[in-house]
Amino acid sequence: MKKIRLYTPGPCAVPEEVLLEMARPFEHHRTDWFKGYMKDCRAKLKEVLQTKNEVLIISASGTAAAEGAIIGCHPPGSKLLTIEGGKFGQRWGEIAQQFGIDVIRHEIEWGTAIDPQVIADYIKKDPAITAVMVVHSETSTGTLCDLEAIGKITNAAGKLLLADCITSAGCLPLKPDDWHVDVAITGAQKALMIPPGLGFVALSDRAWSVVEHNKTQHAYYLNLVKARKSAEKNDTPFTPAHLLIRGLSKALGILLEDGIENVWKSVAAMAVATRAAGQAIGLQLFSKRPSDSVTAFNAPEGVKVSDIRGQLKERYGIQSAGGQEHLKGKIFRIGHMGYVDDMDTVLVIAALEQVLYKLGHKFELGAGVTAAQRVLAERL
Amino acid sequence: MKKIRLYTPGPCAVPEEVLLEMARPFEHHRTDWFKGYMKDCRAKLKEVLQTKNEVLIISASGTAAAEGAIIGCHPPGSKLLTIEGGKFGQRWGEIAQQFGIDVIRHEIEWGTAIDPQVIADYIKKDPAITAVMVVHSETSTGTLCDLEAIGKITNAAGKLLLADCITSAGCLPLKPDDWHVDVAITGAQKALMIPPGLGFVALSDRAWSVVEHNKTQHAYYLNLVKARKSAEKNDTPFTPAHLLIRGLSKALGILLEDGIENVWKSVAAMAVATRAAGQAIGLQLFSKRPSDSVTAFNAPEGVKVSDIRGQLKERYGIQSAGGQEHLKGKIFRIGHMGYVDDMDTVLVIAALEQVLYKLGHKFELGAGVTAAQRVLAERL
Repeated sequence: MKKIRLYTPGPCAVPEEVLLEMARPFEHHRTDWFKGYMKDCRAKLKEVLQTKNEVLIISASGTAAAEGAIIGCHPPGSKLLTIEGGKFGQRWGEIAQQFGIDVIRHEIEWGTAIDPQVIADYIKKDPAITAVMVVHSETSTGTLCDLEAIGKITNAAGKLLLADCITSAGCLPLKPDDWHVDVAITGAQKALMIPPGLGFVALSDRAWSVVEHNKTQHAYYLNLVKARKSAEKNDTPFTPAHLLIRGLSKALGILLEDGIENVWKSVAAMAVATRAAGQAIGLQLFSKRPSDSVTAFNAPEGVKVSDIRGQLKERYGIQSAGGQEHLKGKIFRIGHMGYVDDMDTVLVIAALEQVLYKLGHKFELGAGVTAAQRVLAERL
Repeated sequence: MKKIRLYTPGPCAVPEEVLLEMARPFEHHRTDWFKGYMKDCRAKLKEVLQTKNEVLIISASGTAAAEGAIIGCHPPGSKLLTIEGGKFGQRWGEIAQQFGIDVIRHEIEWGTAIDPQVIADYIKKDPAITAVMVVHSETSTGTLCDLEAIGKITNAAGKLLLADCITSAGCLPLKPDDWHVDVAITGAQKALMIPPGLGFVALSDRAWSVVEHNKTQHAYYLNLVKARKSAEKNDTPFTPAHLLIRGLSKALGILLEDGIENVWKSVAAMAVATRAAGQAIGLQLFSKRPSDSVTAFNAPEGVKVSDIRGQLKERYGIQSAGGQEHLKGKIFRIGHMGYVDDMDTVLVIAALEQVLYKLGHKFELGAGVTAAQRVLAERL
């Protein structure tokens, strides 16, 4: 009786009914049948992402969606400021650089969030900057930035704001339109509760006016103008991963049945409970400004990350994430996104306690679970 | 009791056990579990595609795989000759042009195949040409070119040969290594019997030596060098559509259990049977050099394509393809790829007869089925 329990910050657990939906017989994608799913997903995505803008569906990963957006938003003469405090922030700077975009790559300490004032200073100092790209929730460090505050600054200055919302959309409060986020990017396998293979991007009118006039054309498959033209007809410019789109329709329906703001509250409660549990059992948070969608703990003194993760997986089928790059062996991460609820959170905390206990970490067994329960019981 | 019967030349029917495989619980993709599937698919893909070269798996459509290959194989100073006799040939020329590659776009009449001598003449006349791109089986017209003969010419001249094998790999005789095909591209949703969402590309050593030294870098997500580096470790550079890769492992296993050469024979028999049936009921083939993976018929005098396809779908759940671009309303197409066998072929011919009969086309009802049966019975 070996169960698989996904607590990785993507791919996240997928409801069984979504998996079964995708196993059902399917039709060709140039049909009313598929157009129906597209129409449904387009409407639901707007609601889940809290935007009036078209949410483009790209049959590729979130990275590909971001690549299309970065290329599209940077015609010659553009200048981008990227904020890099983790693996994903770095990736966006790397893409910009590779495509020959004039880019300032501002590095911050991993696990910290950018001070919005720093962005304001950059913009003031260098009026050539046309766009800023940030990671809303940096998955690699479990850190959240103040996207709303940043949006106020970029909007006032008339700059485009691109945001990697891959581990925030659908699980953390996010209001791209109200917050002046011009480009919101996300992926399938996080809060949207489907397996990997789709990326999403929603652009403001201001972003579209840049993309539409951009003649650089370094994107064919990832061309956003083509994607929008097709989307408006409930279609796609190239053969879509239509199985996943059908799963998406089901998964978004489940999220919306709960209500997106309730989902945000639930994710926040799981994160608060997990942090409370960590504190109760002597685990230190890695992030100085933790995201609610993924919690990163430092490994306690004398205990190896590989042992914690290995034992969680071997004994209880629990898949967690380790650290990336220089954080490898230093932190481990637990996600609160996707098909996971309060009691799954209690479960993973209990398992973590048992494993840490066995590995020699000193703490009061059960204290973490109790602390989490206190948070969760308050919500009933 | 409404059945869905996919005879479109992609997406093709998928075995139920592949769909169910994909509905099973899954793990994270940075695990030995996923590496096992990658390893398995890598080995099986080589066998199905009959190549010793690494077959890269791209989480996107076949078009994206082709885009990555076209960009990679054309550093500044390259010159490409594309042969365009249908929608897909046109697409490759369009991609080359968009990325600023020096390209000669040689158009031929749709439904005809390129005379290999024409390619030889081009190469002789213009030594600056570094590569030639052809469509092995042009899906939009149901036409096959003589890839082996073309390969002899390009190889003797030391030019790269890129081939769109999207509707030939896994269903038609194809030997990239023996035929000097430097880049063989294919997709998931045709003969490989999985739903759309994956593209594949296999490069010869000669092609790799170009791609590795190419500094243009107009591909990040579609960068083939990155994909190979990861593949060698049974991994992917970006989050893969791992559900589909697991389905692929199962689907390729089914193909290889039959034996790839037997699959080729079976597809050929279904095509021969379909053409024989067409002749028996007064249907004219559109292609002058028909491919065995998809048969394109002209609509008979006085009968509308939309009525044929509409009735097939409405009455019998049969999904066929129409014509694209200027062939819209002129032809209809039936695929012989994927999870389809002799008796499915008899079924679609019988349905086609019944529909044509009702629509007023004059022929001897049953003659097509009998003609097909004759071909298929011979194989027993």
